[in-house]
Amino acid sequence: MTDEATAFVPGHVTGFFSAHPNDDPASAGSRGAGVTLTDGVRVTVRRREDGARRDDHARRDDERRASRVTLNGDRVTVDPVESVLAEFGVRADRVEITAETPLPVGAGFGVSGAVALGLAFGVNDLLALGRSENELVTVAHRAEVNAGTGLGDVVAQARGGLPIRLEPGAPGRGALDGVPERPSVEYVTFGELSTAAVLSGDTRALTAAGESALADLREKPTASRMVALSRRFAREAGLLTDRVEDAVDDVRAAGGDASMAMLGETVFAFGTGLSDAGYDPSVCDVHTAGAGLVRED
Amino acid sequence: MTDEATAFVPGHVTGFFSAHPNDDPASAGSRGAGVTLTDGVRVTVRRREDGARRDDHARRDDERRASRVTLNGDRVTVDPVESVLAEFGVRADRVEITAETPLPVGAGFGVSGAVALGLAFGVNDLLALGRSENELVTVAHRAEVNAGTGLGDVVAQARGGLPIRLEPGAPGRGALDGVPERPSVEYVTFGELSTAAVLSGDTRALTAAGESALADLREKPTASRMVALSRRFAREAGLLTDRVEDAVDDVRAAGGDASMAMLGETVFAFGTGLSDAGYDPSVCDVHTAGAGLVRED
Repeated sequence: MTDEATAFVPGHVTGFFSAHPNDDPASAGSRGAGVTLTDGVRVTVRRREDGARRDDHARRDDERRASRVTLNGDRVTVDPVESVLAEFGVRADRVEITAETPLPVGAGFGVSGAVALGLAFGVNDLLALGRSENELVTVAHRAEVNAGTGLGDVVAQARGGLPIRLEPGAPGRGALDGVPERPSVEYVTFGELSTAAVLSGDTRALTAAGESALADLREKPTASRMVALSRRFAREAGLLTDRVEDAVDDVRAAGGDASMAMLGETVFAFGTGLSDAGYDPSVCDVHTAGAGLVRED
Repeated sequence: MTDEATAFVPGHVTGFFSAHPNDDPASAGSRGAGVTLTDGVRVTVRRREDGARRDDHARRDDERRASRVTLNGDRVTVDPVESVLAEFGVRADRVEITAETPLPVGAGFGVSGAVALGLAFGVNDLLALGRSENELVTVAHRAEVNAGTGLGDVVAQARGGLPIRLEPGAPGRGALDGVPERPSVEYVTFGELSTAAVLSGDTRALTAAGESALADLREKPTASRMVALSRRFAREAGLLTDRVEDAVDDVRAAGGDASMAMLGETVFAFGTGLSDAGYDPSVCDVHTAGAGLVRED
């Protein structure tokens, strides 16, 4: 019997997007484009054999049930986790979830979506649930939408590459394409922004700017154009902070190009844009594969 | 200016399939399931600066134009190549195409589809054509269908993993899912079979067996079930050769499971099925990423 299962999910930075709410969370989502990263989240799911004995206690204690996730060694609450487990009919106290990541949390890298998706892959394997990849992605996407923590990270993280979200929603509803380049990536983070706060506000200006950027990217889907359109979007949508704008200006002054991660006080660039401008960025690559199980040999 | 571009395309073994012809080659294709392999084809496309001067000669010499591909050092004809170049408006004598692979040709590994797809990625990058990944896959899929060398390899090779072809056709028309496992793979090849010969014959029994296997796999999409259903399909479709059947029986006698690659005299197994049965197989892994450019740093 397998006692644990591990999945890796790439980080995902959205460059621009439009929000498409829907009463059906599998059909809700976003259009837009972004970058998946070799910096990602490694999620391990283990059986808790003592879970059954704690039955009554655990059932009464909702807060306890919500916090059975360890992220980089700290107990945390990741909103979509409970709903992923509930969809699979797995009681929260039957599994222990450990996530490790070099990515900052709350800064636009899709960490919550990654935990949800990695959990779906891990639980499916650990408990031999027999779901397909599309089903696992759908469960994680729905959980992320219901939690309000993201609209398009999960489907992008499942795909890998430089994903273009043509149509919103989970597999079978949404549609994806990709930019066929594999540049290296640099990023710096100045702080957090609340995705839920932006998504729950008036998103009309944002969505108009996102739709316009998507149409322009589809005409010529290249990495450099994606960054330029992301920069235009961030300005038009009114999401640039002063620190982010300064860093983007610095990169452009040094001959490169950069934009802002949606949603975080994070600047990303392809190639050596940030280090050429004197920053000390994290460096990684575009993740080619998308989310999947990690085989332990 | 870039003078060459390289793409890697995983090998793809189909375990079972149903054939779905259509007058529109982008809508034609197959349903079924298979395995993408870390053993694949590396395709490099280079500019030929002398192409323009050879203009008249090349235009008259069709055979010459059809054979500007080098595969493992030998000049070969790969049927879909010319149609990929024609779709992009690239004269065949303007580029030199070099393909390297450890895979046997004509034995069910999708080498011709891989060359077509790698060429599409390579030419797009080399000549800055600005196509999206879906467009590149569509061009290669159409070329493969028109050449009669395959129906589902290209879309599977673009995806990676253990692809399930739910609906036939290129991106936007077809639909894919996947089995969320990443086992290691063993294979042995006894000889070639002609895909074109099988596909041009009566495919009704084959398609009925393939549809039935697909329905059963979708109920519980696991790697072991995929192999078992592939074995049932090969028998029902009447495609097993004696040598293949003997090897499959040997693997099963040793406690494993194996089936036949569609279409080649090739046996594949997950884990150590073939070596446990005393064979000396090639060994590789499931390819997680699907086709893409290779960055040369």
